[in-house]
Amino acid sequence: MEKLSPLQIERLKYQPKLPSSLSKGINSLEMSEGSATQSVRDQEQIQNLFKNTYGKPVVTFKNTSSSNLSEVRNVGVILSGGQAPGGHNVIAGLYDALKSANSANKLYGFLGGPSGIIEGKYVEFTDEFMDAYRNTGGFDIIGSGRTKLETEEQFKSSLEVCKKLNLSAVVIIGGDDSNTNAALLAEWFVQNNTGIQVIGCPKTIDGDLKNDQIEISFGFDTATKTYAELIGNIQRDANSAKKYWHFVKIMGRSASHVALEAALQTQPNITLISEEVEEKKMSLESIISYMCDIIVRRSNAGKNFGIAIVPEGLIEFIPEMKSMISNLNDVMANMEKEGVAVSFEAVESRLEASNAKVYSSLPTLIKSQLLADRDPHGNVQVSKIETEKLLIEMISAKLNEMKSEGSFSGKFNAQSHFFGYEGRCAFPSNFDADYCYSLGYNAFALINFGLTGYLSSVRNLTQPACEWIAGGIPLTMMMNMEKRHGEMKPVIQKALVKLEGPVFKQLEQNREEWAMNDRYLFPGAIQYFGPSCVCDVTTCTLQLERAKALASV
Amino acid sequence: MEKLSPLQIERLKYQPKLPSSLSKGINSLEMSEGSATQSVRDQEQIQNLFKNTYGKPVVTFKNTSSSNLSEVRNVGVILSGGQAPGGHNVIAGLYDALKSANSANKLYGFLGGPSGIIEGKYVEFTDEFMDAYRNTGGFDIIGSGRTKLETEEQFKSSLEVCKKLNLSAVVIIGGDDSNTNAALLAEWFVQNNTGIQVIGCPKTIDGDLKNDQIEISFGFDTATKTYAELIGNIQRDANSAKKYWHFVKIMGRSASHVALEAALQTQPNITLISEEVEEKKMSLESIISYMCDIIVRRSNAGKNFGIAIVPEGLIEFIPEMKSMISNLNDVMANMEKEGVAVSFEAVESRLEASNAKVYSSLPTLIKSQLLADRDPHGNVQVSKIETEKLLIEMISAKLNEMKSEGSFSGKFNAQSHFFGYEGRCAFPSNFDADYCYSLGYNAFALINFGLTGYLSSVRNLTQPACEWIAGGIPLTMMMNMEKRHGEMKPVIQKALVKLEGPVFKQLEQNREEWAMNDRYLFPGAIQYFGPSCVCDVTTCTLQLERAKALASV
Repeated sequence: MEKLSPLQIERLKYQPKLPSSLSKGINSLEMSEGSATQSVRDQEQIQNLFKNTYGKPVVTFKNTSSSNLSEVRNVGVILSGGQAPGGHNVIAGLYDALKSANSANKLYGFLGGPSGIIEGKYVEFTDEFMDAYRNTGGFDIIGSGRTKLETEEQFKSSLEVCKKLNLSAVVIIGGDDSNTNAALLAEWFVQNNTGIQVIGCPKTIDGDLKNDQIEISFGFDTATKTYAELIGNIQRDANSAKKYWHFVKIMGRSASHVALEAALQTQPNITLISEEVEEKKMSLESIISYMCDIIVRRSNAGKNFGIAIVPEGLIEFIPEMKSMISNLNDVMANMEKEGVAVSFEAVESRLEASNAKVYSSLPTLIKSQLLADRDPHGNVQVSKIETEKLLIEMISAKLNEMKSEGSFSGKFNAQSHFFGYEGRCAFPSNFDADYCYSLGYNAFALINFGLTGYLSSVRNLTQPACEWIAGGIPLTMMMNMEKRHGEMKPVIQKALVKLEGPVFKQLEQNREEWAMNDRYLFPGAIQYFGPSCVCDVTTCTLQLERAKALASV
Repeated sequence: MEKLSPLQIERLKYQPKLPSSLSKGINSLEMSEGSATQSVRDQEQIQNLFKNTYGKPVVTFKNTSSSNLSEVRNVGVILSGGQAPGGHNVIAGLYDALKSANSANKLYGFLGGPSGIIEGKYVEFTDEFMDAYRNTGGFDIIGSGRTKLETEEQFKSSLEVCKKLNLSAVVIIGGDDSNTNAALLAEWFVQNNTGIQVIGCPKTIDGDLKNDQIEISFGFDTATKTYAELIGNIQRDANSAKKYWHFVKIMGRSASHVALEAALQTQPNITLISEEVEEKKMSLESIISYMCDIIVRRSNAGKNFGIAIVPEGLIEFIPEMKSMISNLNDVMANMEKEGVAVSFEAVESRLEASNAKVYSSLPTLIKSQLLADRDPHGNVQVSKIETEKLLIEMISAKLNEMKSEGSFSGKFNAQSHFFGYEGRCAFPSNFDADYCYSLGYNAFALINFGLTGYLSSVRNLTQPACEWIAGGIPLTMMMNMEKRHGEMKPVIQKALVKLEGPVFKQLEQNREEWAMNDRYLFPGAIQYFGPSCVCDVTTCTLQLERAKALASV
């Protein structure tokens, strides 16, 4: 027997909660349909691209006393993209629903992400295999990958594999891009009369796959709680030692939802939000000034310590940096073509004057990082730029200047941190364990009612699980046309932080108070057992958004 | 009312467990004395320096049916040095014991560490004040500091403050250095007939304050569990994504106990132990070879991912680096005196040939860091050297070489992490909450029996708390003479990892298996409620050491 940690052993026994509508089982459901739907924008184009799957109704499940017999169905499941806590539970919910509907049903897991369905690499789930992964973090059960499912050739290969396994349906667990791919595959399967259905499940710790129909993607709850645990611990340390400013960069490639949620859970002194920086067209200099102002005022109050939260994507939301990086990508590509050696000077001489000025103003470390790490397309890997160190260096320089001018007399010692990988594979919180299990269970309900091109939807999430509402949302309903690699494509709209929304407002209304008067909260480690007020409460983001949504009804 | 996190609110209510010997209260104790003790080494010199407090017996408490009345006593308490989870509970135990002995007793907290007693900065504890900090992390209740209490002048100032507050005793919560200071102060107080007692409490997450009498210092349990949580999460991520090697540097300034314990809890692919590197006189090159060998073998098995644990102090245990850094400190000091500009070339030209060679072989980033951050004594701040990145860069270089020679055909992409501040102020685990409360409670028992120059001792820690053995150890018993800043001084012996000990053996016996076959354990977040097998189990280190100690009895 493999050795397991005590928590692993105990968590395997946890029975996730289901919405009461699903709790009588798959064969005792009835489905109600809403009216025809529209995409969020570009209706004509989206409809044209999704001739067969566009305009379907939102559906909702209720349980019924009558029991339907279910035909035999085999289903394949894919984990797509970055890890998020709870992925294993989506599969567990799907597996349990499928087996409870008909014990002859089979669930196959495609290995290593979407490439698994293309290349025909899979595993069949058994009770024993499934049971070893219940309520655990990670995507290691079948692995994940970033292959995009979008070409005719890929669809054809996938079809061959599906036919071989006699699949009725494929469930794709992924973020906005993966679910866009799910919609394309669903449409293609209908168009080609394959009879194979495709259902998506909303995954991403980034929290940017949400809209009027999807309250939150899974994983956001656990990941933000993990980061908040660490930020809280560091705040307590800062407040005890009183000698360091801690700069904490938080994962979230583009949107700042994760940083914002972590901030609401911990109430740090400074929180930067990329969307605000972009909307207010803040320059790097103005960000540094804003931070220095708080650092100086705290220092004047005798506090040479504090915490600043920085979203990972920040740098690309600063207008002058965005422009410089875009220019730099072209310059670097040309230099490579021409075989010119890369150096600070060579790069500066080729950048446009305004961009060269921005580039040359950066600390050496950052200038190097901008030249060093390029992605396969030759672009700067913004995620590898140590923005937290950039800010520390520039703030140090400014404070040293102020010191020599006599306008700062305090101390500024900083520590930097970056949290991302620490939270993507944590044991899912009770919320995520329950939500994911419900999403998976519900995905099979959608399959059983013959739907395709739908996203599994579980709503009313701030209420106890028994009151959650299960159903499905047509994927096309969340789409619009956006430019990708120079081409207009149908994509699911990404949700950025809304400055007029209740979550950002909560920060805005409190940040001056948090800046000066240490209102640190210490969330501590995620608890799986114990009082419900500790174990079963979801994020501030979801609570604030739901409260606002309910108030506006 | 101040806003608190749900876990904060619930943890304030937790009632820490006490050894049954202490559970009937301070006034129902009897003390038994062992025979006279000796210091671990240098007995004559230590005795000479501690004429009044040397040679005292180990004492143990039992409860008794008779109840002694206790005279009124005021006590002062100091938090000294770096934060460790449970410090607040030591104070809570002390406070509860003191108040239960006589409600007229008073507890004062000196603010900001040892400087508080010198400068007379303090606060008086009340029920309300104390209750707000029970079972919480951090040292923010009264703050901590790194002032050394060792000069005659400091002792005199402290005495004045103690007299003003009418103190019977001072409790110093600290690591080996702070407890050495406690011993000096205790001796001075006796020598000067002040009647004021001094009791120490063993604190440090580093785990290096332990010996035959002290099973473990407090904070080690919680801090290592917090780091293990994060390492486990990252392992799950690595094993899901299968594309990164994660290099995790773990706090612990000198000894590798923390890295070793975190490794036993998570079973990573590679664990470096500083003490082994030193004992086996491993060069940086041989460390890189060792790591590359595992990386290549895993890659050959199709695994271009893994986890490596690196202790913070590593660099100083590599003989050639130690020599180079020592030489560099002198060179830099001279250059500063002479007003010579610091550059890589200037430094290399002044280093001894062998050291210059080592220096010039390092990656640019590390060469810069070695020149950039100096401590107040002008020495390299080794804790700021990014050893994890040093290893990544050198491994990358070697693998690229191997690639061009055809002996490596895999991929090596790495992420680096450093965990330290994340764990020093976590909510104490149940173990640390109980242990610390018992240490504080017991400290007052030692005071009440008139002892001075003792360390509060709670033993038998792998058994349930009710079976723990409470008593006291003469501080001089743990001392020897060591060179500090060029002078021989009496100090408490620091415990390094013993290569022949059961803890290192556990790693050594398993590391080849863990290197190749992913035996990752996922400890998850510390649990405070729920099954005892999850919530109340202490570290592998303590369990292995106790098992060996008991077996050898």
